[in-house]
Amino acid sequence: MSLIVVGTMAFDALETPFGKVDRIIGGSATYVAWSASNFTQPIKQVSIIGGDFPQEEILRLQHRGVQFEGVEVVKDGKSFFWSGRYHMDMNTRDTLVTDLNVLSQFNPKLPASYQDCEFLMLGNLVPAVQISVINQLKKRPKLIVMDTMNFWMETALDELKQAIGMVDVLLVNDSEARQLSGEYSLVKAAAKIQAMGPQFLIIKKGEHGALLFHGREVFFAPALPLDDVYDPTGAGDTFAGGFIGHLASSKDISFENMKTAIIVGSAMASFCVEKFGPLRLQEISREDIETRIGQFVDLVNFEINLV
Amino acid sequence: MSLIVVGTMAFDALETPFGKVDRIIGGSATYVAWSASNFTQPIKQVSIIGGDFPQEEILRLQHRGVQFEGVEVVKDGKSFFWSGRYHMDMNTRDTLVTDLNVLSQFNPKLPASYQDCEFLMLGNLVPAVQISVINQLKKRPKLIVMDTMNFWMETALDELKQAIGMVDVLLVNDSEARQLSGEYSLVKAAAKIQAMGPQFLIIKKGEHGALLFHGREVFFAPALPLDDVYDPTGAGDTFAGGFIGHLASSKDISFENMKTAIIVGSAMASFCVEKFGPLRLQEISREDIETRIGQFVDLVNFEINLV
Repeated sequence: MSLIVVGTMAFDALETPFGKVDRIIGGSATYVAWSASNFTQPIKQVSIIGGDFPQEEILRLQHRGVQFEGVEVVKDGKSFFWSGRYHMDMNTRDTLVTDLNVLSQFNPKLPASYQDCEFLMLGNLVPAVQISVINQLKKRPKLIVMDTMNFWMETALDELKQAIGMVDVLLVNDSEARQLSGEYSLVKAAAKIQAMGPQFLIIKKGEHGALLFHGREVFFAPALPLDDVYDPTGAGDTFAGGFIGHLASSKDISFENMKTAIIVGSAMASFCVEKFGPLRLQEISREDIETRIGQFVDLVNFEINLV
Repeated sequence: MSLIVVGTMAFDALETPFGKVDRIIGGSATYVAWSASNFTQPIKQVSIIGGDFPQEEILRLQHRGVQFEGVEVVKDGKSFFWSGRYHMDMNTRDTLVTDLNVLSQFNPKLPASYQDCEFLMLGNLVPAVQISVINQLKKRPKLIVMDTMNFWMETALDELKQAIGMVDVLLVNDSEARQLSGEYSLVKAAAKIQAMGPQFLIIKKGEHGALLFHGREVFFAPALPLDDVYDPTGAGDTFAGGFIGHLASSKDISFENMKTAIIVGSAMASFCVEKFGPLRLQEISREDIETRIGQFVDLVNFEINLV
């Protein structure tokens, strides 16, 4: 088994109702790697960073089994930088700054050692790069999971649809599912999006949980009610990391096992939001994760004894 | 066992993205009775109607075991009338008309035959009426469930808090929980509201499901993803009816059985929204309900097999 993770590794500046940080490690592939590495190692990372990306962060990820052969380092360049401010409801945010920096020249070449890929996680990126990575793999992975966002629906819809047609599992949030399908009902949206190619669709609803659609089957996982959500940045990527990490670990891509994977992803996301950036993900143990998953069981478990 | 249901019986005019109806039977006590009577009978109704309330609707409810001794009929008066228009998201609506009519003189006197009440459902009403009904019962019911809304938080907060202090289970939606508690986090809101009196708090989140809080315990029930939501009117009351109907039927008011009751309520609400007004509730069978509850089991059921 081997898992490839494609995405950004970046710096973020974040402002939430609970505080702000000027410069913290971020990026989709960073969150996916921190999350997935709890379940499966090695992780074959594909990204691009500038010379400013801290060596100690690289070492910490390597210590977690994250391989960097597929990460291009542009010594004289600066890493991707994103800055955003969250509203009180934490579901909406304003982007303050987007400095692509080295990301503008991201054109990954997969190392030969990555060709044994069985699980491929395509983090949110320009669809052309997602397509390029799939096309570079000589043997199709067992499972391709793809994240995307509304920005590509507005600026690169044709390429986005091409990418969506090549993957097994698509991850979007509820408003993106509506935008992509033109349907308000999420059930109808899911049917239309599955007709575009993916056999599985995950619709993320933030604090309202996540839905997994597969044909006419549907599974719902709640988000854990938390005292406070400090920073939602990376929660979706962390969810994706737990999801594909569990699948890669168990090598079982059935609908039944995807339900478990969604609960694992939800548990990981519930940690992510407890501190700024990936800080909380960097300190949790296997026992913390198992305890948290137990809380999800308690949260939704019920007996039906109608009189 | 006996269940008292207090609330409005009314006419509604409704406009949704799927169509409109000019005059359809509505009112909180109407929806609660249609829903609860699937699980427990008789239902001792407390309400007020005008001479214009259709006799055939009364007969249909009586046929369902709904008793009318506590329903005041003002022969020369007109029944309460509400008119509203839903937005595309179905979570927000504009009130177009509110004609209180006979509701302005609602001052219920409980019949002697209602004194054996074990379960009391207080539908959304002016808190003074809710308090009056509780005070008229010589023996406190085994369980008092109360629904309310933001309007009373803005116009009668002191009386509302007094009523809340007298009940076991409070039902509010998420924005009302935030308004009542002054807390954005629903976990913190739940703790503050429980400190006002109710041992149990249900926070309804519409298409995003419902949360049950009891001390530090929490249970989540999803809403069933539906192809279309035609009309959300009465869904909250229908939920309440299924909830208290199941509890009254099983006579078990444990937290564990309340979980089941919330699933039953959610299943009933999922029928309610499929047609205008209470039309769908009037045609479903026990088998339909059991099939629907089975869909809820499938929706959230998962196995945890971490590798």
